[in-house]
Amino acid sequence: MTPTLVTAEVDAALEALLPTGGRLAEAMRYAALAPGKRLRPFLTLETGQLLGFKARDVMRAACAVELIHAYSLVHDDLPCMDDDDLRRGRPTVHRQFDEATAVLTGDALQSLAFEVLADPLTHADGAVRADLTLCLARAAGAGGMASGQMLDLRGEGPIEAMQALKTGALIGAAVEVALIIGQVADRRREALMAYAADLGLLFQIADDILDAEGTTETLGKAAGKDSGAGKANLVTRQGVEAARRRGEDLVKSAKARLDLFGEAASSLQNAADFVLHRRS
Amino acid sequence: MTPTLVTAEVDAALEALLPTGGRLAEAMRYAALAPGKRLRPFLTLETGQLLGFKARDVMRAACAVELIHAYSLVHDDLPCMDDDDLRRGRPTVHRQFDEATAVLTGDALQSLAFEVLADPLTHADGAVRADLTLCLARAAGAGGMASGQMLDLRGEGPIEAMQALKTGALIGAAVEVALIIGQVADRRREALMAYAADLGLLFQIADDILDAEGTTETLGKAAGKDSGAGKANLVTRQGVEAARRRGEDLVKSAKARLDLFGEAASSLQNAADFVLHRRS
Repeated sequence: MTPTLVTAEVDAALEALLPTGGRLAEAMRYAALAPGKRLRPFLTLETGQLLGFKARDVMRAACAVELIHAYSLVHDDLPCMDDDDLRRGRPTVHRQFDEATAVLTGDALQSLAFEVLADPLTHADGAVRADLTLCLARAAGAGGMASGQMLDLRGEGPIEAMQALKTGALIGAAVEVALIIGQVADRRREALMAYAADLGLLFQIADDILDAEGTTETLGKAAGKDSGAGKANLVTRQGVEAARRRGEDLVKSAKARLDLFGEAASSLQNAADFVLHRRS
Repeated sequence: MTPTLVTAEVDAALEALLPTGGRLAEAMRYAALAPGKRLRPFLTLETGQLLGFKARDVMRAACAVELIHAYSLVHDDLPCMDDDDLRRGRPTVHRQFDEATAVLTGDALQSLAFEVLADPLTHADGAVRADLTLCLARAAGAGGMASGQMLDLRGEGPIEAMQALKTGALIGAAVEVALIIGQVADRRREALMAYAADLGLLFQIADDILDAEGTTETLGKAAGKDSGAGKANLVTRQGVEAARRRGEDLVKSAKARLDLFGEAASSLQNAADFVLHRRS
């Protein structure tokens, strides 16, 4: 399974889950179907495959995680937050529509994520559906992503702790939803969650390197925002080379976490390289 | 059970569910624990009692509905939405904190609602927890409240259809969560859902009358906003007297829906009078 195939499959599934008709639905589709890497659904699908599941068994959970990610991008881009005009190479939702529509779009994407998870189509066992909801709600809320964004906006707390919340919590959830569907509670769970934690840190370091080195054209969003805003991160604090070394260490660590799976985990292991060396 | 008692009980339960520590938690508490009527939790608790449940059996579901309501107020008050400075007699969240904090506070309150519902403490049966999540997510999202707010902002569509989404969906969910916990699917369900639909319409008509006749002091929020903004509603279109007559008809209808329960439903029946004649 290559990332490109995953993206097409995920987009088709997202497309079918999103509402149609009216301005709110239009903005939700604009936000959630914008070209993107679909890293989080990729992680859910690959973890599912590693545990012996077909893509269709975990696809709705993968989409729910992506819907939460899409909502967070819409709200993070708002003028009162990071004030970005460009996202994924296109105008941000509040630029393409308006601010009120962007707030409601994020809100409705979040609701939809939980609507998708709680639906009997997601899993026959209600307890599994409730566990999926609990996992994603915790990752998204005040114990996860929302807190991370708050700390980031205010420049508060240790950077890695902030990033673990802002980015790491949802990346962890992308892996965990597949573990919940598989009802896996053995050392495979520990290994995969440790992998996800490494990947979350790696993702943020790569983002910081891209922010410093990328161009607006390659990124599809404004470059140099963190250094321009005087925001502290590993790159602005220790330089690109130190960040890249830390990144390489994390790639090694992430890959080693999955050694117990043998060859079957190569796709997830390669994803670590992809995350560090991506150009956007 | 008097409304005052319900409010104290609900506030104690909300207080225990809300996070502590840090600016985001502080703003979430400020928003969700602000003095309010707690009409939606009241409806959940009273419906639960009518079905033979104790308050503690439905209290977490009642709180989840109130958390969604609290999130919607925080976002509706934002400068890009209704731009309100005052809510429940106090500065709105973006006034007391700042806009970015208000966006994240609403976001995190929504996540918390689903975290509360999906937790095993809410109900022993996972399928019930998932059904509760599905019910509330549908009421909150693009098929309910968020769409209603979108239509209201843009002055689109028939007014009663907009109001049924904006206010009615969540009032319906407040009753429905108790029906889900009770796993009631007979004519009691139909009667209670019809009552909730009447009450939702009634609530909005009363709001429109208050907006036209109340003062900022009695309301705890800006008065005359709709008429000032040239917004169409039953009052601005047909006058206060016609709205009041429609309200009295709805009170009668709402009460009659519950006749099959006899005396046991008097508290819910009285709530219809309360909703029409409230002063804030």
